[in-house]
Amino acid sequence: MTKKSIQKHHKVTFLPFGISIEVPARTKILEAVKKAGLPLNAACGGEGTCGECRIRIKSGNFEAKTSGVLSTQLLSEGYALACQTHIIDDLVIVIPDYQERSVRSVLGSEFFEKQKNNISGVFEHNPAVRILELELPSPTLEDNYSDLKILEREFQKATGKHKLSCTYSVLLKLGQAVRAQKGHIQVIYIYDSDQTTILDVLPAEAEKKLLGLACDIGTSTVALHLVDLKTGRIKSTSSSLNQQIKCGEDIISRINYAQKPGGLGELQELIVRTINLLIESASQKAHLSPSDIYYASFTGNTTMMHLLLRLEPRYIREEPYVPTFNDLPILDAKDLGLNMNPEAKIHISPAVGSYVGGDITAGLLCTPILRDAEKIALFIDAGTNGELAVGNREWLMTCACSAGPAFEGTGIACGMPASEGAIEKVTLDESGELSYKVIGGEKPKGVCGSGLVDLLAELLIHGYIDRHGKFKEINTNPRIVDSDEGLAFVIIEGKKSFWGTDILLPERDIADLIRTKGAIYSACSLLLKNVGLRFETIDSFYISGGFGQYLNIENAVRIGLLPDLERYRFHYIGNSSLLGAYLILLSDKNKNLTNSIAKKTTYVELNTEPSYMNEFTGSLFLPHTDINQFPSVKKIFNQNKH
Amino acid sequence: MTKKSIQKHHKVTFLPFGISIEVPARTKILEAVKKAGLPLNAACGGEGTCGECRIRIKSGNFEAKTSGVLSTQLLSEGYALACQTHIIDDLVIVIPDYQERSVRSVLGSEFFEKQKNNISGVFEHNPAVRILELELPSPTLEDNYSDLKILEREFQKATGKHKLSCTYSVLLKLGQAVRAQKGHIQVIYIYDSDQTTILDVLPAEAEKKLLGLACDIGTSTVALHLVDLKTGRIKSTSSSLNQQIKCGEDIISRINYAQKPGGLGELQELIVRTINLLIESASQKAHLSPSDIYYASFTGNTTMMHLLLRLEPRYIREEPYVPTFNDLPILDAKDLGLNMNPEAKIHISPAVGSYVGGDITAGLLCTPILRDAEKIALFIDAGTNGELAVGNREWLMTCACSAGPAFEGTGIACGMPASEGAIEKVTLDESGELSYKVIGGEKPKGVCGSGLVDLLAELLIHGYIDRHGKFKEINTNPRIVDSDEGLAFVIIEGKKSFWGTDILLPERDIADLIRTKGAIYSACSLLLKNVGLRFETIDSFYISGGFGQYLNIENAVRIGLLPDLERYRFHYIGNSSLLGAYLILLSDKNKNLTNSIAKKTTYVELNTEPSYMNEFTGSLFLPHTDINQFPSVKKIFNQNKH
Repeated sequence: MTKKSIQKHHKVTFLPFGISIEVPARTKILEAVKKAGLPLNAACGGEGTCGECRIRIKSGNFEAKTSGVLSTQLLSEGYALACQTHIIDDLVIVIPDYQERSVRSVLGSEFFEKQKNNISGVFEHNPAVRILELELPSPTLEDNYSDLKILEREFQKATGKHKLSCTYSVLLKLGQAVRAQKGHIQVIYIYDSDQTTILDVLPAEAEKKLLGLACDIGTSTVALHLVDLKTGRIKSTSSSLNQQIKCGEDIISRINYAQKPGGLGELQELIVRTINLLIESASQKAHLSPSDIYYASFTGNTTMMHLLLRLEPRYIREEPYVPTFNDLPILDAKDLGLNMNPEAKIHISPAVGSYVGGDITAGLLCTPILRDAEKIALFIDAGTNGELAVGNREWLMTCACSAGPAFEGTGIACGMPASEGAIEKVTLDESGELSYKVIGGEKPKGVCGSGLVDLLAELLIHGYIDRHGKFKEINTNPRIVDSDEGLAFVIIEGKKSFWGTDILLPERDIADLIRTKGAIYSACSLLLKNVGLRFETIDSFYISGGFGQYLNIENAVRIGLLPDLERYRFHYIGNSSLLGAYLILLSDKNKNLTNSIAKKTTYVELNTEPSYMNEFTGSLFLPHTDINQFPSVKKIFNQNKH
Repeated sequence: MTKKSIQKHHKVTFLPFGISIEVPARTKILEAVKKAGLPLNAACGGEGTCGECRIRIKSGNFEAKTSGVLSTQLLSEGYALACQTHIIDDLVIVIPDYQERSVRSVLGSEFFEKQKNNISGVFEHNPAVRILELELPSPTLEDNYSDLKILEREFQKATGKHKLSCTYSVLLKLGQAVRAQKGHIQVIYIYDSDQTTILDVLPAEAEKKLLGLACDIGTSTVALHLVDLKTGRIKSTSSSLNQQIKCGEDIISRINYAQKPGGLGELQELIVRTINLLIESASQKAHLSPSDIYYASFTGNTTMMHLLLRLEPRYIREEPYVPTFNDLPILDAKDLGLNMNPEAKIHISPAVGSYVGGDITAGLLCTPILRDAEKIALFIDAGTNGELAVGNREWLMTCACSAGPAFEGTGIACGMPASEGAIEKVTLDESGELSYKVIGGEKPKGVCGSGLVDLLAELLIHGYIDRHGKFKEINTNPRIVDSDEGLAFVIIEGKKSFWGTDILLPERDIADLIRTKGAIYSACSLLLKNVGLRFETIDSFYISGGFGQYLNIENAVRIGLLPDLERYRFHYIGNSSLLGAYLILLSDKNKNLTNSIAKKTTYVELNTEPSYMNEFTGSLFLPHTDINQFPSVKKIFNQNKH
């Protein structure tokens, strides 16, 4: 006991979260990371061999075991393996951005520059949560109404809103707030349906920030924008793996996990922790405080939304597939343990049903589909759970398919999200020379979705792989090696990579990418057949997903992810669920729009279609078993044979 | 350290609260009581001399220091002083009902039997919180709306109520609740204005209780009814001292205390603890569970209501006397830490202003004042803070005065509330023989308000005291003794009293009673002058307060508490604030009625009246300096002189 009381402790601060903890001297950094509740993987179980727990030590002394996993250059830059390093000093440690996925806003993308006029209405700045300055008259002996009555009277005069209430915390502050500046106050309120609720009241002196949060909860990736509600501007963006991923990679395995004792609670804690860390990190970046967040808009599939709310998800997958809710009134952030202002309200984007969630109704906001009464469009959300919608202003049909997270960079050895260090474009020339573009311009760390599409197409077109996705020149091509992961294509040699080790695309990951693109293509095909349409009758295709900022449409057609039509019909719109969440935050009218989308949409169950397996199996080739569906690719194949 | 770990502990259970704690052997009972957070006074500081910390040990061995304070009989019945007794065994201890003030319902009183028809409308059973059984249709693949949508649809069909929302906890339970009995469920909801909120949803199998709480928070005494909302019947009643009393006896001292660092928080914790203990005790008595309480109606003066909500009360007493609120929307019980169902809602009776609170608007519900357009009535609430209202259906004027808690049995040596053991009626005959009636019929413990009024009148009429309240026959009358408390009248000799010690009325307490009655009478007189009326023009007087079940009107006139008019004009209605709280619980229409009372009432500030001091000073005699205002008393005096 006495020994313990004199044991030395050190302070460890983790960036970009700004979280500090005290730990006993000689604690391993990996243990300290866990104690701080931060996410860091160590697939090898802390043996120092997988290299996944790489961190960078910004200041302070440490004691690391030598290991061949990190290059000399990385070691010289302060990189270390968290599982092999002991804390012997106060440290400032950066959890690297491999975990911190920086999502680029789709707002600046080529598509949006072109289409902004078409869907400009949704960019109107008309948020549900606002701030209002009021000058309350000083009470006198003759006019000594209560503080609350005077506030209500003046608020109603200023806004014309009459169905007014306030939260308990406003009552707690009111007496002092109205007297601090002689009645000069700021009021933060939310207008929902015809009911107005005052969320906060402050003396006018404070330069009050009013922030909102737009958050897309994907099965694999969670991304959010921190938004200035006064201007509508995005102040910062953060994204990371959904920490629930350790409980299962897809929706079905999460639903199964929720059935275990304590499983549902654990899943909810993991998603809340993921979101709270992202809020912390986005706030730090923008020098803002989470306590100024008063409103959050959440999008995600039906299961993710149920897990966020700690609602039993099993009925979603049991016939007749009934979720607890599709649409909900505004909820209180504090009920969920989210790190915002204690009075913050949250909006959950309405779902169509168990398998088409609020990510799709919000995503459809970002397309002009609802503005056209004649032309028919197809919306493709290529997430871990793939969802599709076809229709126009008059009608909408949707379906879901289990696509997998490959294009988000998960489950693929070299895969990573579209953040700094990711290869986002790849070309191979005739001589086998590989050119690439890295986000941020430094040494590559891995390949994001758009780079994987490019790579697959280039390998196919240049004959490295056959139409089954198998390597052809096993013994002759020096880029095809027999690695620990099996046969693999060397994308980047170790000396040119950030981590100092080869960046590889193994054959088995190619199979994974083919399954993913096949699931999406066959679902599109089946959905169209179901409504009596063909690909050719679709005027526009809107493709959404975590590929990155760009998606090479030509290559997406070549691998058979998209049908072989005129390229102008295709529009890549990035993470439409996140953009939709932002649009709902930006204007309350968009909230109502998503409700009308959810109401008019019909869900089609593809799993019960007898032809589903045939369609899917046909798609497990590059580009397809039926090469005649892809005449432009057939033409290249024929040219290359000459 | 090792010694501690093997130290013996004992379990101590306190009745009627049913609270158990573990304490180390040889702990004093007084310390254990404090550890359990229960109220028990020891005015002598634990010296074993005041006897206030008397408790009764129901089972288990204990070790008590001998002390002369308790009679042999009490000791034989298990009574002990908590400050002088060590715990050496597992104990079951009764905190005596000196603290636990049993309030008799006014419902059975003579007045109500007569007047019930006049105010029968307010007894309608039409509560805001109700329970509804529903049979939800089973979803199918074709009709697989969400659980929430089906609930809303069927609820709206059954009730016609369309503006519907539900709490987060309902969402959490919904999936399992609708499936447990194949869609056969019970729904608990509150209807407020035009908005309905579902508070709970349960499988239909459970025999669900639906309870409400009516609670009057007085400056000195807190009283509550536990009510079956399904039938409207009162299931049990509890009352006790307001534990805030240790921070000051009247409103002004509480407001001052709230200004100290931590003072406001402490006051709120004390009132919540007081209420929670009463809820516990009322629930135990009725074999009901606090978790079935879904709605509570609170009444009390403006300061008490501010302290309950932890709202800064200082502006109430600073010019221009502006409270934070007069009326409030429905609040959440969980925000206040009240021991009810986590989703319980609370209603705070609307106040007129800083010094006329929701106790008066609720109290006025219990009188026919609002039903008569011609006759004028005066309503007197003789609490620690006295409040008055005069008027009829057309107009109402109110004022407040600082009366003091003497008639509630506080601050008077022999005083006690109208609970078991209290002398509620007293008569003296010509020979000096004193007859009395004890609540419960056992040996007397003290005297409640109605008994004190009787006693004062009898001492005056029979010449024991003069019109200043001073003893006349100091050396000749054996009942007038020189006690530790100064000159005092022996009401009950030790051998006949429950505690084994004399029950005394000291001269200084007579002065206190005179100040209290004087404050009320002078305030009535001044209020009437203010509106250009005289006592004679008042048709009916409704007297409310904590006197007990009865108030001898004849004696109340004799001491000058009430004016000397025909006795039929006076109606004693008991604790009208508590009854009003119950009526609001019983019918939502009564809630609206109190709002209209609050709106139509005008407040008159008496403290700024120049003639206030004259009126008050004139009332500090028995019955008054101006005996001609009391002809019937004058007549008795003249008779007695003969």
